[in-house]
Amino acid sequence: MSSDARFKEAAIALGYSFDGEIRIGGNYVPLLRDGNTIHVSGQIPRVENEIVVTGAAGEQVDLARAQIGAKICIMRALALLQRSLGSLERVKAVPSISVFVQSARHFTQQSEVADGASELLFKILGPAGAHARTSVGVYQLPKNATVEISLLATVE
Amino acid sequence: MSSDARFKEAAIALGYSFDGEIRIGGNYVPLLRDGNTIHVSGQIPRVENEIVVTGAAGEQVDLARAQIGAKICIMRALALLQRSLGSLERVKAVPSISVFVQSARHFTQQSEVADGASELLFKILGPAGAHARTSVGVYQLPKNATVEISLLATVE
Amino acid sequence: MSSDARFKEAAIALGYSFDGEIRIGGNYVPLLRDGNTIHVSGQIPRVENEIVVTGAAGEQVDLARAQIGAKICIMRALALLQRSLGSLERVKAVPSISVFVQSARHFTQQSEVADGASELLFKILGPAGAHARTSVGVYQLPKNATVEISLLATVE
Repeated sequence: MSSDARFKEAAIALGYSFDGEIRIGGNYVPLLRDGNTIHVSGQIPRVENEIVVTGAAGEQVDLARAQIGAKICIMRALALLQRSLGSLERVKAVPSISVFVQSARHFTQQSEVADGASELLFKILGPAGAHARTSVGVYQLPKNATVEISLLATVE
Repeated sequence: MSSDARFKEAAIALGYSFDGEIRIGGNYVPLLRDGNTIHVSGQIPRVENEIVVTGAAGEQVDLARAQIGAKICIMRALALLQRSLGSLERVKAVPSISVFVQSARHFTQQSEVADGASELLFKILGPAGAHARTSVGVYQLPKNATVEISLLATVE
Repeated sequence: MSSDARFKEAAIALGYSFDGEIRIGGNYVPLLRDGNTIHVSGQIPRVENEIVVTGAAGEQVDLARAQIGAKICIMRALALLQRSLGSLERVKAVPSISVFVQSARHFTQQSEVADGASELLFKILGPAGAHARTSVGVYQLPKNATVEISLLATVE
């Protein structure tokens, strides 16, 4: 099964469609290619016009729901890559991802939130989805999103 | 008009001079070149010895003032690049910028703050100023700065 | 004296051993090589199973202790590089480090905390340890760690 087929499966499993416009909230580009490296801008769990996971993890949002937020960020990043490259099969590696989790003061499971993102990358991209990772707990995120994820991808 | 001339215009519009020493606050280098990529250290809105925009956005600092802080961070980064390269015309791309905004709990306009930075990059560098972007809301920044921005630039 | 010998000296000075397993807290890889660049995942001050510096800087943790936390993060990153490369002598540059400091609201010495990391990189790696740096104050970190540091290293 191709990574594109696995992407479609993951979207169905999450219950969201990533076929619409991938909106971004400002005056920049969603991804920028520099040689064989593609910088993907920070993605929040937005589907169409709605931010579907908002609030602080450990307060308004539990771990399971924050993980879904992380998965939606990854799906958006992959949708952007798929449209830009034609197919996710062209992604050769994801050298690093940065996971920012809007956190309550005593919420210390940022790594566990990020695991939602990591698992999905491995599931969809296979070995090409292996990545270095940094997860931190921030005070607030654009549009009150629970999670924001940026990443690097490489193509041949 | 060259990007260097547009840089000078932007400094006048902001009302600050970036001709003095660009001080940094620690034991590291302001920029580091690795092949054709230049890593620019996190810049806060410091002009000479003074941090000119301090406090949390949404609390002590409104959106418009935070955007000015973001612009000053970008001017510092560009001043460093200009001195290192001789001219901003040598900057071929700005693959990514990271924008950290000291935020009040309910301040969710980190993207709008970052737009101040993005607009200035486009204005001064033209198409070479297009960039991927990540904006998050942090709890505190060095010297109580309202904004901190790091970026990558590439030369031929 | 080689960088490996200086690494050993620094471990003795800190009073911790970095010979054991370098555990990471999630479903990702501790470092990922992309061409000549190695992305090192965010490191917290964990030695074996214990996070040895926890809590917010400026509250439960003073500056000196937070700097020790930063040093342990760097030791872990260097231990990972040493195991992967065989010797730290193969590290040619550390283009950038990102330092996330769990901060009390009024703690603004994130740069000073990061200086602990920067000094150790210079001390162990010599000129190859020069780096661009970004330091910010976050609200919380995985496992209540006081500091988290990610970095890039290059080999020939």
